[in-house]
Amino acid sequence: MKKISKKEKAIALVSGGMDSSVAAAIAVKDYDTAFLHINYGQRTEKKELECFYKLAEYWDITRTLVVTLEHFKKIGGSALTDEKINIPEELSEKGIPVTYVPFRNANLLAVAVSWAEVIGATKIFIGATEEDAAGYPDCREEFYNAFNQVIKLGTGKRNIEVVFPLIKMKKVEIIKLGTELGVPFQYTWSCYKNEDKACGKCDSCLRRLRAFKEAGIPDPIPYINTT
Amino acid sequence: MKKISKKEKAIALVSGGMDSSVAAAIAVKDYDTAFLHINYGQRTEKKELECFYKLAEYWDITRTLVVTLEHFKKIGGSALTDEKINIPEELSEKGIPVTYVPFRNANLLAVAVSWAEVIGATKIFIGATEEDAAGYPDCREEFYNAFNQVIKLGTGKRNIEVVFPLIKMKKVEIIKLGTELGVPFQYTWSCYKNEDKACGKCDSCLRRLRAFKEAGIPDPIPYINTT
Repeated sequence: MKKISKKEKAIALVSGGMDSSVAAAIAVKDYDTAFLHINYGQRTEKKELECFYKLAEYWDITRTLVVTLEHFKKIGGSALTDEKINIPEELSEKGIPVTYVPFRNANLLAVAVSWAEVIGATKIFIGATEEDAAGYPDCREEFYNAFNQVIKLGTGKRNIEVVFPLIKMKKVEIIKLGTELGVPFQYTWSCYKNEDKACGKCDSCLRRLRAFKEAGIPDPIPYINTT
Repeated sequence: MKKISKKEKAIALVSGGMDSSVAAAIAVKDYDTAFLHINYGQRTEKKELECFYKLAEYWDITRTLVVTLEHFKKIGGSALTDEKINIPEELSEKGIPVTYVPFRNANLLAVAVSWAEVIGATKIFIGATEEDAAGYPDCREEFYNAFNQVIKLGTGKRNIEVVFPLIKMKKVEIIKLGTELGVPFQYTWSCYKNEDKACGKCDSCLRRLRAFKEAGIPDPIPYINTT
């Protein structure tokens, strides 16, 4: 007997990437979950959207919202949204990488909170992880805690909060957890560059490949190069 | 001799409304100011955009950005963005009015901060005022203070802040200040409903009319009814 309608509502931000697909699976377990996807003019927009729809179908999600934010492409300033800036073919180490999209996660959360107010969701799941992207200021736990304060003060319903269950996890742990939860990693995409076969060389591919290797689990998506 | 290029950069959120036009005038005085306008599917979108361009021209602003956010119309939940919800013809008093657009100002600020990171602006001017819209949770000073904390933690450049010079001012004071600063109120629009002649009956028209009357200054925009 399905009891979903009686569950508390949540929104999962599902980018089509690995981490958000695991965060979404956690949400699905305990909440009546709506999936939100945001196109922001990134190079692999089409592929990520395709993954989003496949994940939504896989989890039987009936309430989805796809939003296109046009301003990131307009303002540029990131290798993900500006074709003139090259995607580096190495693991980023120190400082803020050129793939940082300025204040992106705050924009995504703002959209999610607006929707949460309208549909009456109380939790917003985001797959952010500190280890994954130490250089991204909007992937840190303190940023999300501060954002929750803004939600409390800036919304009509004061019961909405962002949850970030993966924030302290390593990517290899995320893959293991996702595997336990039944996450279909074949419907996830991490490559910053390509939409058909992952490049295997960008920071995001390198981290993903390393983590699957460490987990001893085969990565089900196609690559051009698997170094 | 123009010294503008040596000034610190700011962004002014210019909705085309009265308050933001005064906040923008304050910015223009002291900063090399870029104007940002956001369409969010509100009923009077076209008129407000027209005012934005006229204000930008009036102040000789060379850097402007117009962004359309599609999600507010998609999600609804506000009389401003959902034609099925009527605009009340009275002053709103208690509680959150139906014209509240869920978490709107956080969305607008997020866009502004992203742009500020790219162009190197350090201040973001917003014309929010507590008195004007006591029922709007995202118009309170504490909300903006909390948002500044989020900016500090979530951006690469940690020197950006939102400033809200009108937050404690009454609308009549804002009109007087704007008059001193040379704000062309003929290029501002407040009506929630109409784009040709202001209705004179909605909450926003009533507040504007009352304030101009108190200030003893004629309101230069056309009205259908001036009760």
